[in-house]
Amino acid sequence: MAVLQIGAGGVGWVIAHKCAQHNDVFGDLTIASRNIEKCDKIIASIAKRDNQKVSQHTIESAQVDADDIPALVALIEQIKPDLVINAGPPWVNVAIMEACYQTQTSYLDTSVATDLCSPGQQVPEAYDPQWAFREKFKQAGITGILGAGFDPGVVSVFAAYAHKHLFDEIDSIDVMDVNAGDHGKKFATNFDPETNMLEIQGDSFYYEQGSWKQVPCHTRMLEFDFPVVGKQKVYSMAHDEVRSLAEFIPAKRIEFWMGFSDKYLNYFNVMRDIGLLSPDPVNVDGVDIHPLRVLKALLPDPTSLAPGYTGKTCIGTWLQGRKDGEKRSAFLYNICDHEEAYQEVEHQAISYTTAVPAITAALLYFQNKWSDVGLYNVEQLDPDPFLALMPSIGLDWDVHEL
Amino acid sequence: MAVLQIGAGGVGWVIAHKCAQHNDVFGDLTIASRNIEKCDKIIASIAKRDNQKVSQHTIESAQVDADDIPALVALIEQIKPDLVINAGPPWVNVAIMEACYQTQTSYLDTSVATDLCSPGQQVPEAYDPQWAFREKFKQAGITGILGAGFDPGVVSVFAAYAHKHLFDEIDSIDVMDVNAGDHGKKFATNFDPETNMLEIQGDSFYYEQGSWKQVPCHTRMLEFDFPVVGKQKVYSMAHDEVRSLAEFIPAKRIEFWMGFSDKYLNYFNVMRDIGLLSPDPVNVDGVDIHPLRVLKALLPDPTSLAPGYTGKTCIGTWLQGRKDGEKRSAFLYNICDHEEAYQEVEHQAISYTTAVPAITAALLYFQNKWSDVGLYNVEQLDPDPFLALMPSIGLDWDVHEL
Repeated sequence: MAVLQIGAGGVGWVIAHKCAQHNDVFGDLTIASRNIEKCDKIIASIAKRDNQKVSQHTIESAQVDADDIPALVALIEQIKPDLVINAGPPWVNVAIMEACYQTQTSYLDTSVATDLCSPGQQVPEAYDPQWAFREKFKQAGITGILGAGFDPGVVSVFAAYAHKHLFDEIDSIDVMDVNAGDHGKKFATNFDPETNMLEIQGDSFYYEQGSWKQVPCHTRMLEFDFPVVGKQKVYSMAHDEVRSLAEFIPAKRIEFWMGFSDKYLNYFNVMRDIGLLSPDPVNVDGVDIHPLRVLKALLPDPTSLAPGYTGKTCIGTWLQGRKDGEKRSAFLYNICDHEEAYQEVEHQAISYTTAVPAITAALLYFQNKWSDVGLYNVEQLDPDPFLALMPSIGLDWDVHEL
Repeated sequence: MAVLQIGAGGVGWVIAHKCAQHNDVFGDLTIASRNIEKCDKIIASIAKRDNQKVSQHTIESAQVDADDIPALVALIEQIKPDLVINAGPPWVNVAIMEACYQTQTSYLDTSVATDLCSPGQQVPEAYDPQWAFREKFKQAGITGILGAGFDPGVVSVFAAYAHKHLFDEIDSIDVMDVNAGDHGKKFATNFDPETNMLEIQGDSFYYEQGSWKQVPCHTRMLEFDFPVVGKQKVYSMAHDEVRSLAEFIPAKRIEFWMGFSDKYLNYFNVMRDIGLLSPDPVNVDGVDIHPLRVLKALLPDPTSLAPGYTGKTCIGTWLQGRKDGEKRSAFLYNICDHEEAYQEVEHQAISYTTAVPAITAALLYFQNKWSDVGLYNVEQLDPDPFLALMPSIGLDWDVHEL
C-alpha cells in the first residue's frame, strides 16, 4: 500500500502526521511539494513527535510542481500510490485530478478549485471545474472524494447524518465556523494573507428556495451561543459547501457563517478603506506592486503562529426543521483545542480540524467503505462509518439540541 | 523689489497667491521648484483667481534643486531678490540658508530643518542646524526669520504677545492645533503621507521646569473646549515651536498638542500594528519596498483634497499664569474656514494658515519692522505689528479668557 500526498502547507503538515500515525493501513507515504524542504521539515517533525506507527513503511519527500500535469503523472507512475491526497492550494485541484484520471489513481481533496470571489468562480459555479470529471472518474474506474476537510467536509457529513437520522424535513442548514483562539499577535491571518483577504471581502452567496442570493460581505450577521466557546458574532460568507449541500441535501435555506471579532473586522475595514486589500496593483516609485503582496510580507507567517496559539475552535452545522411532526433545532459540532493539537502534531487547530477528516475519509477508502467508483462530495457518502471513525482519529463530535 | 520663493507644494501655492496679492510691495516674484510645472500651475491659478494686485511686476517660474547650494546661489545671483521665502520641505532649510549667506540675501521659512523623530533630530536638537547660522547671518548683514508659519509662527507670536501684555508670570504654554475639517475621504493625510506618518508616530517632547520630558506618542491626551469647533481631544506631540519657545519665552511647562479624532487614531493604530508605518523596508517578492511609500501610493494625493474640504481649523496658544497678582488663563487663537480659503486661493485652510503668517512676516521685513540684522525666531520679534497686520492679510485672531 502507498499514499502520495501533494502539498506541504499547514493542512499538509497535519495530514502527514496523521498518515504516519496510521501507516499500518496506508503503507508508504510520499510527501511532494514544489519546495522539497517543506516536506523534509514535516518528516523531521513526525520523527520528533514519534508519530510514525510502524517502521517498515517509509516516509519520503519529493519535488513536484502541482500545476504541471506531465510531472504529476510521472511522479504518480513512479510511486504507484493507492490514493493521492491533495493537500495543496485549491488552484491545483484540477491539474491533480487530471493526473489521477490519466494514471487511474483515486483522489481526495479538502477544498474547492475556485477562488469563490472572482466572476465565474463564485459559489454557484464553485464545483463546475471538478464536477466536470464525473464521467472521466467512472471511465477510469477510480474513486474521487471531494471536500473532505472540516468545512467543507465534516459539516457536510453532519448535514447528511442529520438528514438520515434526525430530520424528516430541513428548513435551514447553517454551517458555522468560529475560531475563539488567540495567537497573541496584534493581527495575523491563519492561512495565506492574500488568499484569506480576497476570500473575506468577496460577496456572500446563500441558497434559498431553490435560488442563489448574493449579498456584500459582512452585511448578514447573527449572534449564536456556541457550546464551550460561548456567544460569538458570525457573518454570512461565500464557502464551498453551500454549493454541494444545495446539490445533495434538501433544505429551504443553506448558508455559511464565519466568526469575526469586532477587533478583526476593524483591522479588515481599515485595510480595505486605505486600499491595502485591493487585488489591483499600484505604482510605487515606478514599480507596479500588489498591495496584498505587501500585506503578506508585513504580516506574521501563518505557520509561525502555531506554537503560541491558545483557545479553541468550534465548527458545526445547525439544522432547523421537523422530525416526527415536531419542530427540531440541532447543532452538530466539534471543539478543537489549539494547544492540544500543537502538542500532538506541532500545528494549530485550524490545520488539525482540516487534516483529521481527510485522513478519516482516506481510511474509509482503504477499508472499502468509501470506495465506490465515481466522483463524490462527502455528503453523498454514508455518514455513519465516518462519524463512528473520526473520534479515534482525533476529533470528537456531539449533537446539541436547541 | 523682488522675492524668490522656493517650493511649490501646498504652502508654496498659497504663499505665491498672497505674494501676488501684495506685489505692489514685493515687486517681481519668482517661484522656483525642482518641478517647474508645479510653479506654472500656481501661476495659472493666480491668474484664474485674479490675485495679482499690480501688473507691472512679473510672476515667473524657475527650475531649481533646493538641495544644490551652487544652483541656489546661481539662481539668487540671477534674480537678486530682496528676500528668499523658503516654502520647501524642511530638509532643504540648511542648503537654502547657506545659499542666502553666500549671496547676502535675507531669508524666511515656516518650519524647522529636522524631522523631529530620528535620533539627533528630535525636539531638543531641532533648531541646532539652523541656529548654527547666527554668526554667519550677522557677518553677512542679512535678516533671517525662522518658523514664520502658523505653528510654529503665529502661535509663537501669541506667546510673545501674552508675555508682553497679558502675563507677569507664565506657568504653562500649550500650543493646540485642531483641524475640525472634513475632506470627505475615508482616510487621507493633509500633507505628504510619508512625512506625516513618521511625525505622528514619533515620541513627544515637552519642556518642564528647565528640562525635556520624552513620552511615547498619543500617551498624553487632554480634552479642550475650543472656540467655534467645540470639544476636541488633543494629544501631546513633538513640534518645532516647543524648542524655540523654551529658548525665548519663560514658562514652567511648554507643550504642543494636536487634535486627532478617534476615527483617525483607529486608522493610525491599525496601520502601525500591521507594520505599514515602519520606516524599514520589507522584501516583497524579491524587491525591497518601503511600506510608507506603498501607503503614499494608496492614499489620495493631499493636493487633491482641497476642492471638497469643508469645516474649520482652530489653532492657538493657551497660556496659564498670573497678571497683577491674579490667576489668568487665556487662549489666543485663529479660526480658518477650508471652503473660504479655497474660494480665495484654490487651497485648503492648513496651507492657508501657514502661508498668511509667512507673508505677514515678509511684509514686516519689507516695511523695515522685522528687518534687524541677524537670525530670529518669530517669538524674538515684536508681536504687536505682526498681530496688527495679519488680519488684513487674511487671518483674524482673538483672545478667549478662560
